[in-house]
Formats: sequence, structure tokens, C-alpha cells
Amino acid sequence: MKGCVGIIGLGSMGASIALNLARNGYKVSVYNRTFQKAEDFVKENPDKGFMLCRTLEDLASSLPSPRVVMSVITAGAPTKAALSDLSSFLNPGDLVIDCANSFYKDSMQLGSEMAKKGILFADCGVSGGKMGALLGPSMMFGGSPEAWKLSEGIIKDICAKTPSGEACAERLGPVGSGHFVKMVHTGIEYALMGAIAEVYDIFRREGFSSDQCAQIFKRWDEGDLHGYLTEITSKVLEHKDKKTGKGFVEIVSDKAHMNGTGTWTVLSALELGCSVPSIGEAVFERIFSSESDLRSAFKHDSKGPGISIDSSEAMQALYLSFASIFSQGFDLLLSASKKYGWGLDPVKIAQIWEAGCIIRSSFLPKIRSAFKKNPDLPSLMADPEFKSMEEKNGQSMRRVVAKGVLGEIPLPVLDSSLSYLDDLSHPLPSNLIGAQRDYFGAHGYERTDEEGFFHTEWEEGGEEIKRQ
Amino acid sequence: MKGCVGIIGLGSMGASIALNLARNGYKVSVYNRTFQKAEDFVKENPDKGFMLCRTLEDLASSLPSPRVVMSVITAGAPTKAALSDLSSFLNPGDLVIDCANSFYKDSMQLGSEMAKKGILFADCGVSGGKMGALLGPSMMFGGSPEAWKLSEGIIKDICAKTPSGEACAERLGPVGSGHFVKMVHTGIEYALMGAIAEVYDIFRREGFSSDQCAQIFKRWDEGDLHGYLTEITSKVLEHKDKKTGKGFVEIVSDKAHMNGTGTWTVLSALELGCSVPSIGEAVFERIFSSESDLRSAFKHDSKGPGISIDSSEAMQALYLSFASIFSQGFDLLLSASKKYGWGLDPVKIAQIWEAGCIIRSSFLPKIRSAFKKNPDLPSLMADPEFKSMEEKNGQSMRRVVAKGVLGEIPLPVLDSSLSYLDDLSHPLPSNLIGAQRDYFGAHGYERTDEEGFFHTEWEEGGEEIKRQ
Repeated sequence: MKGCVGIIGLGSMGASIALNLARNGYKVSVYNRTFQKAEDFVKENPDKGFMLCRTLEDLASSLPSPRVVMSVITAGAPTKAALSDLSSFLNPGDLVIDCANSFYKDSMQLGSEMAKKGILFADCGVSGGKMGALLGPSMMFGGSPEAWKLSEGIIKDICAKTPSGEACAERLGPVGSGHFVKMVHTGIEYALMGAIAEVYDIFRREGFSSDQCAQIFKRWDEGDLHGYLTEITSKVLEHKDKKTGKGFVEIVSDKAHMNGTGTWTVLSALELGCSVPSIGEAVFERIFSSESDLRSAFKHDSKGPGISIDSSEAMQALYLSFASIFSQGFDLLLSASKKYGWGLDPVKIAQIWEAGCIIRSSFLPKIRSAFKKNPDLPSLMADPEFKSMEEKNGQSMRRVVAKGVLGEIPLPVLDSSLSYLDDLSHPLPSNLIGAQRDYFGAHGYERTDEEGFFHTEWEEGGEEIKRQ
Repeated sequence: MKGCVGIIGLGSMGASIALNLARNGYKVSVYNRTFQKAEDFVKENPDKGFMLCRTLEDLASSLPSPRVVMSVITAGAPTKAALSDLSSFLNPGDLVIDCANSFYKDSMQLGSEMAKKGILFADCGVSGGKMGALLGPSMMFGGSPEAWKLSEGIIKDICAKTPSGEACAERLGPVGSGHFVKMVHTGIEYALMGAIAEVYDIFRREGFSSDQCAQIFKRWDEGDLHGYLTEITSKVLEHKDKKTGKGFVEIVSDKAHMNGTGTWTVLSALELGCSVPSIGEAVFERIFSSESDLRSAFKHDSKGPGISIDSSEAMQALYLSFASIFSQGFDLLLSASKKYGWGLDPVKIAQIWEAGCIIRSSFLPKIRSAFKKNPDLPSLMADPEFKSMEEKNGQSMRRVVAKGVLGEIPLPVLDSSLSYLDDLSHPLPSNLIGAQRDYFGAHGYERTDEEGFFHTEWEEGGEEIKRQ
């Protein structure tokens, strides 16, 4: 027996983490608000040595000091209420790890409240879904070095491992950073999924069957585009609906749901002054899919003029789009790190994402190596390997996007990930916007040839005055 | 003398509104936190009968009951503090109108606080810049019918008028709705300016001088694209920098600043579940222009392969892009109206925006007529006139955007406004996203052929279960 851990919440993620801990030799105390659920869980897993707890007080009593409790319940008010209750049964020096999908600012607040009582608090983003949590998820830990010291062994035991055996779990920074990094992970996931859906749409419009599409994604998963999302795209595309015998995706509604993490990512980017247009487009596209009143006013029978796209060209477009999306995501991570003084290490983050999580793919080792070579890399796209991706795939991507534009296929995520790349190497036309803002609102502008902030007196002779 | 009005704040907007009121025959009491500024203002305008007030108490004492006070100071904490101070000198039944660019939720809160004291409160968005405020701005009023009754005469005197003489000011709904509508106005403005800048960029890349660009926009302003933003684009493009003799826009930095209203619009759209991708792209583009560390890592000398675009084709692209942007903006207005039960009338809003404000243009009468013909119009793009705009200009827009994509010119706002139109008439590929989400997260999906919410047991034989 390695040690004792408490688990609060036996939903699919909590139950999986409890089983994962038990498999790794931990003595696990389990608590669930509805006791019946905890009782059933322990009965269904009789040989795992679970300690069944009826109350949070029981849970606390069952653990030796310093206690380690992982909370895996719904984010927001439920997490806050449960951890506040729990804290009255804990002692200074005990550690609570919030493994929910909490908003990072909530975690920062909860962390300060716990700190007042001397209780250690960590926010740990967990990615990989139910199966990941069971077999080994990515774990993004935010908390003090002291909190990490108490839990590093446990977390590194249960997390995913990279192909070379490294743990996909690290302390990334203080409280808040764990859930922030998990949030950006999910924002990137939204955009990657949006890009994949758009490429699928191109093939579908060309008349490819779901089976044919599945074959294409399967081939891509065996090549440069290897990754979990590519793999499961092929799996869901080849699945048959048992009721109708049709391809499964053909009977699934195009009204996509979401939990809100993508929205948080966009909000946070806006607040931090960091541009992540492809994540924005992906989130707006999901929102749009649920705007039923709006959509029902139009016929969805547009077939367009038809386009013909070579599948290797499409692969190159998707590949470069992934690069652009990862670049935007890492830019957001580093913007937050700068603002909050977290000292996030992109090398560690790429390592954590190499296995276990939803966005694991052939890109992560390349990202890791880019930041390893140059810790001050200002943008992933400035790395020589990413630059050469752009050179190799750029023309194909342009052809695919242009064909979509002409062929009436909306490709907002692909479009914006290409625009983002062009923005990087382009003098922007926002000088015109600066001039307009000064004209109508006297907002002032900067000059290219002189330091300072200026205003032109448009109504009074057009003289320029220096404001600062 | 028509009546008395108090003005708090004599910045460029407040001073212009005070002068506008005086010109229209009102007796205006003026207050400014820095008294010197108020004193100078009154001295510079000796014949306007301004009543100079040293304190908020003086301002209150100078006005007959029921008092009407317009506050035109910085939004946020300063507005909140000043109005809270002022309220101790007011009586029940007096009216305070916040004319700042306040966030609508702040106005709703301030409104409730004032209501507790029996003081009437209204939030009035004012658009048109300093000159608009002086000569006649658009005024978007949110408040109770009682508040409107007290101030309608005043506001309709000082506001802009449509070419047929109607007032560009209306009570749109309860407190909150005035600043919300103003916010969306500005969000639309961001996207229109983004689209204009992108078309300018196309011409610039083709080698057109600023003067040539100015001529093009001038011609467009005399045609279908007639509007304030088109007009001032031509004006700033033809302006010469006095220091260098160069075209003014050539010496203005491409680092565009912003006040944050665009950001609020995107945040609100995300919160309300309404898709406004072109506003999102415009905001991200402004943010990107200020990401100096990121941008400085790249050379901005990309000239691209060069494209050749007919100016009438570019005009058609910009025209249809404006239609798409207005459609997104009105969709956001109606989403908020539904959520908050405001009963916003898009006909009134279009009327208010017909003159005085920054986005006034040939589109507004068309929008007004579309919603007049069909008050339940689910989307502007479903109106026959807007549909025919799409039919007439769609192919040109596609060619322009495709050429930009191939020619390495980032056109994120044009791109997304076209994607938005294609989304409306297109079966989305988000069925794939729904299927993927169920695969990795057991999130469930809807079917196209049966009511309910379903989940496939992917790991256990692929059986489908009905959850609801």
C-alpha cells in the first residue's frame, strides 16, 4: 500500500480516478453526496479496498495527516460548497486538489480562502475523458511547491506516460495555472475539431460516403496527422447506426452542444489581449449550430457549384491549420503566464499533452522541441520546423480555402487559421483604423517615424498636435 | 427658455451636449469635477446662459423639480461614484440620465440602486463623436416610460434627424437596453471598419496610392456604399501629413487602439449564445495589431504573389460584407431582447441609426423597411431585399476573398462575413463534432430522426441508449 487518498465525487471521472488510484496501490477513501452511489460503486468493485465514507467528516477521519483529497465534482457552486464544507474537517497542512473543470479565477479565489485556514489547495486540470482518467490522463497541476511535494508521487503514478516513459503531469505554476492550462487545452480542442469538421464537410460535399471519409482520416492518422482526434474521427465516421443501418454521423444532428470551456477561453483571450481567432470562430460556429430560430428561416440545401479537392491537399491544409491553432493556443498560455507571473514552461505543457489528453498528436513533440531549443520563442510559427511546415503546406492550404470560398462551403476555422499566419508576416491595414478613430473620436494615434501619441485637428485646419 | 437641464462632465462629449442643449433653448447648469474646466467652458461661451456650478449640491439646487441631469463622464467607477454622490442631493421623481459608454449590466445595477431611492434612472447611448454630440447625435434611451416622459422633449430636440425629419432618438426599452444597443452599434462599427481596412489593404497591395484609394472610396460614398464610414475613409486617405508630405495613413502606426466596447460586444454575444463571428474577427484583429512582442518576431515584408482586383468587384464584396455584419448585429440585439424581455423594436433602432451615428449608411433605411414589412423577420438575410443583395454581389465577393486567400492578404472580417452567409444556407458539419464529443466525453447527441438525447456505448459494443 503506497498511501491514502480521498476522492470526493464518483461520477464517471471521479470513479475512474478512484479505480486508477486503487490499481496503482493506493488506499482510497470514497465519498459521494448521494451515498447510494458510493455504496454501489464500492459494491461493484469489491476487491479494490475502497473505504466507503458516508460524510465528508468520515472522509477526513479516514485519512492520515497530512491528508490528500481529490475533488472531482461539478465545477462552480457545487465544488465551492463541498470544499468549503470539507475544510472544516481538515487541519492546516492538509491538501485539497480540485480536479473539476473549474474556471481558473474561481480556483484562485478558492485557493486564497483555503490558504486563510492554512489548508493547501491545488487546481489540477484532468484531460482524457473517462477512459483517460481510468488508464492515465494528462494532469495539469497548479499549486505551491509544498502542495506538489505532497501529491507529486500520487499524480505521477496515475497519469499518462509519453512513449519514452515520462509522466504527463507536472506542477506548472501556482494555483490558477492548472485550470488555465486545461482551459486552453480545451480551447485548442474546439478549434482542431472545427477544422476537422470543415475538411469532412469538403469531402461530404464532393459526394464521399462516411466510409470513404473514415478511410481518409484513418490514413492520415497513420501519417503526419497522427493524433487522437484524427483517430476518433475515423472511428465515428466508420460506425454504423444500429437503428437505420446508415452511417452514424448521418443521423446525428448538426446542433453541436458545448460545456462552456471554449467560451471561457475566448473570454480570457479577450481579457488578456491575446488574439486567438480560430478558437473564436470554432466557438461561434458551435453557438451558431444551436441558433435554431435563426437557422430554421433558411433552407439548408445549398449544394454550391461543386469543388474537387485532392485528399493530400486537404491533409496539408488541415495540417497547417493545426499548426496555426497550436501557435495561437501557446501564445495565450504565455500571455497569461506573463500577466500573472506564473512562469509557465511551454516545454512541460507540451510534454503533459503528449499522451493521455484529447489533443495529443504528432504536433506535441515538435512543440516541445521548438521551445526546448529556444525557451524565449515569441511564437511557435517562428520556430524553423514550424516555418518549414508553412512553406511546405501553405500553397495547398490556400488552394483548399479558396476552393471552399468559391464553392460555398463555409470554412471559418481554416480561413482564420490561414489569416492568422498571413497576419504574422504582413503589415496590417489597421493604420487606416487608427486614422479613422482619430477622425471621428479624437482618440489619437501613434506615428511610424516618431515616438509619442498624436492627434490631428480635423475640423480646424488639419494641424497635428502631440499629446504625450 | 424651454426648461432646465443639468450636465455633469465637460469633456468633449459633455461640452458638446451642453452647447447643443443651449442652442436648442435650454437653460443648462454645468458641473465638472475639476471646477477650472467648468469655469473656462462658461467663460469661452459667455452668451449661452450656462449656470456654473461648483458642487453637485449646487447643480441639484440650481434645477427645478423634477430635475433632469445628464451625466457624461468616464464609464465605470467614475460614473458610479459621481451619480451616487449626486443622488443624495436629489428627490424622488428626479431623473438621472447616464450618457457615458457604460457597460449595460453596470447601468442595470445603477438603475436598481437609484430606484431604491425613488430616483428615476435612464441609460442613454450617445453616438456621433464630438461633432455629432454638438450638432445632433443618435440617442439610444433605456428607461421607464415615466423617465422617458420627463426627457423625451429634451432628447428629441438635441438629437440627429433622419432625412425625412424623424428623431434619431427613442425609448428602446427598460434600463440596460440603451447602453446595450449602443454597445452593439459599436461592435458593428468595429467590423465595418475592419472590412474597410481589408479592402484598402487589397488596393494598397496592388500598388494604389493613398490618393487613388481615397478617390475609390469617394466614388463609393456617392453610390450604394454611401455612409459616414465610407466618407471619412476617403477623407483620411486623401489627407497629407504636414510633417513629411506623405499620405497621412502612411505615417500612422498599424497598432490600432481600442476602448473595449468591441470586446464587450463579443463577450455579450458569447454569453447570450449568439454568433457574431465578424465582430469577433475585427476585435481579435485589433488585439493582434497591438501584440508587439509577437509581431516583432516576424518580418512584415510579405508582398505575396500579387492580385488584381476590379474596384467594382471589391465594392460588391464590401457591400455584401456590410449586409452580413448588420445581420449579425441585429441578431445580437434580438437575442438580448428575448433574453431580457426588453421588447426591442428593430425598426426604431434602424431609425435611430439613420443619422448622427458612426454607422449611418444606406443600409439603415433598408434594414428599417425589412423589419417594418416583417416584424418577426428571423434574420436580416431572410428579407427579400437582403437576399437579392446576396444574389447580386455573392459571386464578386467570393472572387475577391479567394484572390486574397491565394494572394496572401489576410481578410479575416470579409472571410467570416462570407462564411456567415454560407452557414445560413448550409447543413453544418457539426454532426461530426456531436459524434466526437459523445465518443471521447460521453456528452450525448441529438438524432435527426427522433426526439430525445442519446449516447452510444462506444467501448461496450456500440449500442445506443436513450437518455431522455
